[in-house]
Amino acid sequence: MMLDTSKKILIVGLGLIGGSYAKALRKLGFQISAITLKQEDIDYALQNGIIDFGYTEPLPEVIGQAELVIFALYPHVFLEWIASYQQYLRSGALLTDVTGVKGAIVERIQSMLRPDVEFIAAHPMAGREVYGVQNSDERIFRGANYIVTPTARNTEAAIQDCLELGRLMGFAHVSVLSPEKHDEMIGFVSQLTHCIAVSLMTCYDGEKLQDYTGDSFRDLTRIARINDDMWSELFLLNKDMLLDSMDKFLTEFTRLRTCLEHGDRETMRQMMRVSTERRAFFDKK
Amino acid sequence: MMLDTSKKILIVGLGLIGGSYAKALRKLGFQISAITLKQEDIDYALQNGIIDFGYTEPLPEVIGQAELVIFALYPHVFLEWIASYQQYLRSGALLTDVTGVKGAIVERIQSMLRPDVEFIAAHPMAGREVYGVQNSDERIFRGANYIVTPTARNTEAAIQDCLELGRLMGFAHVSVLSPEKHDEMIGFVSQLTHCIAVSLMTCYDGEKLQDYTGDSFRDLTRIARINDDMWSELFLLNKDMLLDSMDKFLTEFTRLRTCLEHGDRETMRQMMRVSTERRAFFDKK
Repeated sequence: MMLDTSKKILIVGLGLIGGSYAKALRKLGFQISAITLKQEDIDYALQNGIIDFGYTEPLPEVIGQAELVIFALYPHVFLEWIASYQQYLRSGALLTDVTGVKGAIVERIQSMLRPDVEFIAAHPMAGREVYGVQNSDERIFRGANYIVTPTARNTEAAIQDCLELGRLMGFAHVSVLSPEKHDEMIGFVSQLTHCIAVSLMTCYDGEKLQDYTGDSFRDLTRIARINDDMWSELFLLNKDMLLDSMDKFLTEFTRLRTCLEHGDRETMRQMMRVSTERRAFFDKK
Repeated sequence: MMLDTSKKILIVGLGLIGGSYAKALRKLGFQISAITLKQEDIDYALQNGIIDFGYTEPLPEVIGQAELVIFALYPHVFLEWIASYQQYLRSGALLTDVTGVKGAIVERIQSMLRPDVEFIAAHPMAGREVYGVQNSDERIFRGANYIVTPTARNTEAAIQDCLELGRLMGFAHVSVLSPEKHDEMIGFVSQLTHCIAVSLMTCYDGEKLQDYTGDSFRDLTRIARINDDMWSELFLLNKDMLLDSMDKFLTEFTRLRTCLEHGDRETMRQMMRVSTERRAFFDKK
């Protein structure tokens, strides 16, 4: 299929990301249906022109119309949904998702899926520290990265459609990674950073800290406001990769600590120079 | 003394912070002289209206005119400067600084200083990842914290003048802490965060990381571009407090790692909830 606006899109899970997808795609002219748990989220989305149709139940006739189905659910809910309702999917439908881990999900979904539909996984690397369709905003995709994680079961056509979806929604950088490489990367750049931010907030109970902080502390802990339900699930689903990232970080942090303890200024400076050199790449973009 | 614009101000060390002080104070109507190492920095500052007079040598007649002297030097250079040139200071002069650590500096300066001048220490908690008077910008003080760290040797008048200086330059929050409490706080909110950012950059040598990162990684490593000369000096001067902060962080980070390893989701969630609750205070300001 090609992504023209005649294609009917169904979004399952109308939270912050599902809502932002809906906004981005409806502005492009697509007809958007949504299935989500709460009637109040449907009402809000209809009143604010975010979707065309909304339902709180997985109605067979609604599911059966969609040519592109986007799942924006917690990983375990996504797995349960496919197991329970895939029989209603239209033959030839393309399925994609927004799940933050891939190794534990993609293979399981693809292996249980009907042969006449295709699931191509993707991860929009964008978010906010607030939740719900009420806070959805398609502008969070601007300047952000979008990663498609195909397996050997995927067709080239589906990969291209999924990449095009990312480009259409305004992501700055659209790329392809294997599920394994994705999870290694995400364990480092996203999950490890959240572990650091949480530990930084829990390790010190000083009062009035906010009166004495500089920007550095605020920046490092912005993501310390965290959805404990979702992130604990994502951490556990990527346990091995995340443990590996945590250990890599621990090794370097402990090395710096030892240098400081022994007054080894030259090694400390060398670490700072490597850090400065590597970080410069991020500002060149 | 009261800080009216008839007071002659001398800034020693015209880098990013010295230059930003000069800009802020000259806009308020003060006459600003500066002593700094490089003629090119003097030339730039004169051409851009940042200072009124500039010198590359510690001329006795220039030092002797100043009623307020602001030192924006590396800690060891500040100590050497006072030892070498304090005989030229005007009797009754008020001295202040911008040094990022206090315990290792304030007592040593005050105990070697002539009895007819007074040094009141302060720390403007503002900065940028670039250096030099060419990048100075008094707007970095807006919304930032300014901490005065008096000792028993200081007069109430000097403390009030120093607080007023912070308010005049536009700091959002001006406060008083003991040098010891300041160093404990700074070891946590500033030095520890820089240690984390550096370790995060040095622990992974993946290529093209910038193509896959989200905002969280960029935020956590913004300060990983670091002046190794200055920060290694500041770390070593606050060694005990920083080691203590690093150990507090290590304890929590290791606890989170252990929970993950053992699949203890409930304790992970509990840490995330504490983190979320504490971080919320920083957004209420």
